Amino acid sequence: MDVKKAAMMMKADAPKMAAMSGEARNAILAKVCEALKASRDEIFAANVADMEAAKKNGIAEAVMKRLKFDDHKMEDCVSGITQLIGLPDPLGRKLLERELDEGLVLSRVSCPIGVIGIIFEARPDALIQISALCIKSGNCALLKGGKETANTNRVLFNVIKKAALKGGAPEGCLFQAEAHSEIDELLKCEGYVDLIIPRGSNAFVRYIMDNTKIPVMGHSDGVCHTYVDGDADIEKAIPIIIDAKTQYSAACNATETLLVDRRIAKTALPAIAKALTDAGVKLRANAETSQLIDAELMGDDEYNTEYLAWTLSVKIVDGVDEAIEHINRFGSHHTDCIITENDKTAARFMQLVDSAGVYQNCSTRFADGFRYGFGAEVGISTSKLHARGPVGLEGLTTYKYLLRGNGQIVGDYASGKKQFHHRDL
Amino acid sequence: MDVKKAAMMMKADAPKMAAMSGEARNAILAKVCEALKASRDEIFAANVADMEAAKKNGIAEAVMKRLKFDDHKMEDCVSGITQLIGLPDPLGRKLLERELDEGLVLSRVSCPIGVIGIIFEARPDALIQISALCIKSGNCALLKGGKETANTNRVLFNVIKKAALKGGAPEGCLFQAEAHSEIDELLKCEGYVDLIIPRGSNAFVRYIMDNTKIPVMGHSDGVCHTYVDGDADIEKAIPIIIDAKTQYSAACNATETLLVDRRIAKTALPAIAKALTDAGVKLRANAETSQLIDAELMGDDEYNTEYLAWTLSVKIVDGVDEAIEHINRFGSHHTDCIITENDKTAARFMQLVDSAGVYQNCSTRFADGFRYGFGAEVGISTSKLHARGPVGLEGLTTYKYLLRGNGQIVGDYASGKKQFHHRDL
Repeated sequence: MDVKKAAMMMKADAPKMAAMSGEARNAILAKVCEALKASRDEIFAANVADMEAAKKNGIAEAVMKRLKFDDHKMEDCVSGITQLIGLPDPLGRKLLERELDEGLVLSRVSCPIGVIGIIFEARPDALIQISALCIKSGNCALLKGGKETANTNRVLFNVIKKAALKGGAPEGCLFQAEAHSEIDELLKCEGYVDLIIPRGSNAFVRYIMDNTKIPVMGHSDGVCHTYVDGDADIEKAIPIIIDAKTQYSAACNATETLLVDRRIAKTALPAIAKALTDAGVKLRANAETSQLIDAELMGDDEYNTEYLAWTLSVKIVDGVDEAIEHINRFGSHHTDCIITENDKTAARFMQLVDSAGVYQNCSTRFADGFRYGFGAEVGISTSKLHARGPVGLEGLTTYKYLLRGNGQIVGDYASGKKQFHHRDL
Repeated sequence: MDVKKAAMMMKADAPKMAAMSGEARNAILAKVCEALKASRDEIFAANVADMEAAKKNGIAEAVMKRLKFDDHKMEDCVSGITQLIGLPDPLGRKLLERELDEGLVLSRVSCPIGVIGIIFEARPDALIQISALCIKSGNCALLKGGKETANTNRVLFNVIKKAALKGGAPEGCLFQAEAHSEIDELLKCEGYVDLIIPRGSNAFVRYIMDNTKIPVMGHSDGVCHTYVDGDADIEKAIPIIIDAKTQYSAACNATETLLVDRRIAKTALPAIAKALTDAGVKLRANAETSQLIDAELMGDDEYNTEYLAWTLSVKIVDGVDEAIEHINRFGSHHTDCIITENDKTAARFMQLVDSAGVYQNCSTRFADGFRYGFGAEVGISTSKLHARGPVGLEGLTTYKYLLRGNGQIVGDYASGKKQFHHRDL
């Protein structure tokens, strides 16, 4: 089946998927766990084939780690799904219930978005997490994973889809596109696909946004900052900065720029720089900052760089206000942290930094749906509309307004014959 | 000042606007009410000039009504702002508070979107409502109103902006673009304007969406349905249908298509058709339906027509399931109603119709922020992302995640040295 036909079929099936009970959706997730465990050997064999092909193609070691699907990742996935089953049903929640007038009751009820197209990197665990999130939230999911794990994805997809159909989901609940060319077909499915979530490089996400009329939810970069304030505890600051830069430098929530308050630059910056250099981090800094530390010289206009590597931009700023200005100007509104013992300064920073996540005294690497307790995430949004930050179940839902009356007409309210009383129930 | 410069200034001022207290924002709104009343004569004089120019230009009578700003509309606006002052502060609400681990507390707090560009039709009351909603929600608003009320808008804008500045709002809180060419400049303000809300014709909204990289919130049409089920009370149905079609036919929430259950078509449809025709409504129907009523013949593929006039498409369907299918296929996912005394059938319709508003036994014309008690609306969204249905204060806000720690690093959780406990506070 081609992508457009699949999307049309999924659109027609979306109301059936939406109408499944929470119990039925949870039962499917339980079946998925069982089926994954039962298909262990088949899945691992497919993954071995993917890994061997990747090795032949000279895929980088860091990427190879993501392709691998072993017992450890299987356990993580199953425990993730089990956690998801335990979360409250995101559908059918009454978000508002208001009597507009006697016998005229408005309610706002959460419901699925419908058909969601998700394009993701070559990571078998991502396929499992995304499918599980969509099943739990009653959405139909059109999946396109990275080609390097095509064999693993095919087996995983079949296992999950079979479990879903057995559990009563409609045929259109899940579809997997396998060819790269199918991404462009997906982008043309306006009217059938309600939302596209692209995961990947900035350039890729930008390409998706520029080439479809379907709403897109995706962040396009992660230029995160850690600002060391004049009132910081430097002993506390150093491990936070090292973790934020090195714990997983390829992640979008890794810190890319270190800002240091001029008040303490002379005393604290050399110590921080030494700790970073000793840890293996390469430093870059503008002319002024370079006078205090051993760093590669960089231009003042380069502070919007996302390295995704063990490299860090460093800059001296004039206290919290210049830090805020710098972050709002050069950052990507993802996640930014202040290190300070002064809660008043922290409050100012948290109020005025315009980012999805604003932290005090902890690593920017905490920006993650699993760590936030959302039962995995489908992506991290730096958009301010709909979902912002890590997107879990709630970001995969919308709502509708239901109005129940008994013959009420607007003319009676327009003429003044009747009045609204707007009483929340 | 040109639009781009204004937008840049507003972007820089947005954090200051966001940081104003709820009391300060309410005090500005109170000042706006006073200032509007005090400037009564100046406003009305400007409006008389607009009305005279419009008359000379042969503007249609229906449009003239919208241009007019008199004591009655002034009172409505002032009472709308007073209602808005009384609503809870949409900012700083804790939407979530969760201890991820000891001493590591996550909270999700509502905040303004930032800089919002709003393009609206020639209606002076719209300028007042939109400005008031943006002030209450802490957003900076870049306004472009219809040219037919340019004189009135200029006076109103100055009155409101003066009150805002006196109340402590930053210079960039409000800006008015006056030239039509400035719309295209606004569309290029990516990075400075966070959201564009266009109000107007389908073609206009589509043009905006196709010509900017800034997120757009706008509905592009309103093809609303009323479905008369086999279990309907026909005495109740007729006034609802007439209200839904004629109470204000130019509105997007007016019913454009009447669907009638085949089970009762022979008995009920002629009576309904007669009532509509007597009220002055022109009927159009496909071949089958035309056999029962006196109507202009229309093709089965024309049921996606938005008339915005006293014309109604009529069609016989095979019960609630065909009604649902028809609505999901031909409708615009705005507002659709079932007339039935059978609550089970109604529940099915409300579950499966994929629209922002799904009603039972009342007029589709109720879809409106004021009627829902939102203190006016900035628009009605048929998108499923962010806000759906009438968009009031809540749709003008987003949220940020704040995380407060005491030196926590992700490495400790990745290594298993520490565990998250995710306890909601």
